[in-house]
Amino acid sequence: MIERISILGTGLLGTSVGLALRSSGFKGSIVGWNRSPEQGQLALKMGAIDSVESDPIGAARASQIIIIAVPIYATLDLMEKLASVLGPNQLVTDVGSTKRVISEAASRLYNTPERAAFLPGHPMAGKERGGADNADATLFRGAVWLFTDDPTWKRSERAAALTADWRDWVMKMGSKTIDLDPVRHDELVAWVSHLPQFTATALSALLEEEVGAAPELKDVGGRALREMTRLGSSPYSMWRDIAHTNTEAVERALLALEQRLAHLRENLRTPELRDEFEQANKFRRE
Amino acid sequence: MIERISILGTGLLGTSVGLALRSSGFKGSIVGWNRSPEQGQLALKMGAIDSVESDPIGAARASQIIIIAVPIYATLDLMEKLASVLGPNQLVTDVGSTKRVISEAASRLYNTPERAAFLPGHPMAGKERGGADNADATLFRGAVWLFTDDPTWKRSERAAALTADWRDWVMKMGSKTIDLDPVRHDELVAWVSHLPQFTATALSALLEEEVGAAPELKDVGGRALREMTRLGSSPYSMWRDIAHTNTEAVERALLALEQRLAHLRENLRTPELRDEFEQANKFRRE
Repeated sequence: MIERISILGTGLLGTSVGLALRSSGFKGSIVGWNRSPEQGQLALKMGAIDSVESDPIGAARASQIIIIAVPIYATLDLMEKLASVLGPNQLVTDVGSTKRVISEAASRLYNTPERAAFLPGHPMAGKERGGADNADATLFRGAVWLFTDDPTWKRSERAAALTADWRDWVMKMGSKTIDLDPVRHDELVAWVSHLPQFTATALSALLEEEVGAAPELKDVGGRALREMTRLGSSPYSMWRDIAHTNTEAVERALLALEQRLAHLRENLRTPELRDEFEQANKFRRE
Repeated sequence: MIERISILGTGLLGTSVGLALRSSGFKGSIVGWNRSPEQGQLALKMGAIDSVESDPIGAARASQIIIIAVPIYATLDLMEKLASVLGPNQLVTDVGSTKRVISEAASRLYNTPERAAFLPGHPMAGKERGGADNADATLFRGAVWLFTDDPTWKRSERAAALTADWRDWVMKMGSKTIDLDPVRHDELVAWVSHLPQFTATALSALLEEEVGAAPELKDVGGRALREMTRLGSSPYSMWRDIAHTNTEAVERALLALEQRLAHLRENLRTPELRDEFEQANKFRRE
């Protein structure tokens, strides 16, 4: 049914999608485009795509499903450009980490019976280092893939069928899907994804200042320190658009953590410390 | 040369020491004591010790090396009790996470030519769950084992030789040793060990409040969230004495992190965010 899929952006996520589609049995053709041609060639060499196109619009035109896997502002830009050249027999989806602004654009530009469908998506999978060379066919196995589909959108019958097909492929790649309202999505990921990232960034930056001059002391912290700072390697380029498009929710989460740390600091020698540990223990209890 | 070693406290660390000594070729006898007899029996069954004693003083009396592996206040208590019954042919060492108060007690109660030696130690290894059942012969492999030995202490020749022997066993168990001043030790571990722990506790406690009622949403965070909250499982019983005996250094580290998070929060939409990410990236660069 799906003869051709386009992956616009063959970085870590885009290339992993190509590899995962192949290892889940997708038999159609997969074409790729990337802003930097080297990443496109690497994805081709890794078998994630069958050919590299030099232009994203050209790459998208003849495909039934178009997956946008670039940062959020670049996603919005591609959404604008693609909306006028695609039609009701095509589905566009994305992998962006915030969904409010993308869902708004999807309402404005897509999802009428005359236009292409757009299904906003967000696989909760990644690595602290991006790039096609870190891509992995099993990246989405066991992960949650969030969608912020809107039941009021009116899609053509063909576009609705493609949407169902894509959900099937996501499950074949090993992910569990959850549907959320886009505003609720952004609030939730502010807590469970963006707050942990920004905490690791602040902790790593602080420790670099305090013990960075004595690299042998970094070993002293052992596994616990390595885990708490691994996300500190995440690049700004991956997180800038997230900070810009989910600012208020992230601000609330950060402020709440600052207050929680202050509470703990003020209670290092009081019985209140026990309550904090017991509350924390509950979160990890399976 | 060493015929008998005593392990006082056969929890995670004590039992792991017994297992690691055996797998590193220690041929003498190892006796154990534990406040809760079940943990002692478990350590015996696991082969970490050869016999269980019902009284720590009795267990220590006939041993050349006595390893105290209990929380810090209990360590100070045992140090007091043992000092009057042990002699200059014996070495006591410990595994406590803060060293200032223990080193002070070691100066006061040990380390004269007529008394037993005390070598304050701190293996930077552990797990978020304690107990003999989580013990592991390889726990110390690749870890750093800190000592806060004091060159002004005057030990008997025999006690000095036992101190050198114990350092050899620590290296045979696979650890790298580093010697630090006790005050510097407590400052360093406040940054690289205690701050990461209290951050994970605060983050886990906060997230339990925010998303704890919807357990399926915990999965959404994926590996990043699991890593950033794994230490949230650590029990209060393991951390209370640390908070009490390293309060000022931990307060300073927590306050610095609160300020760093506030700075990041105030700069989510400014170029300053790039600087924070770049500073954090440096910490993880090998």
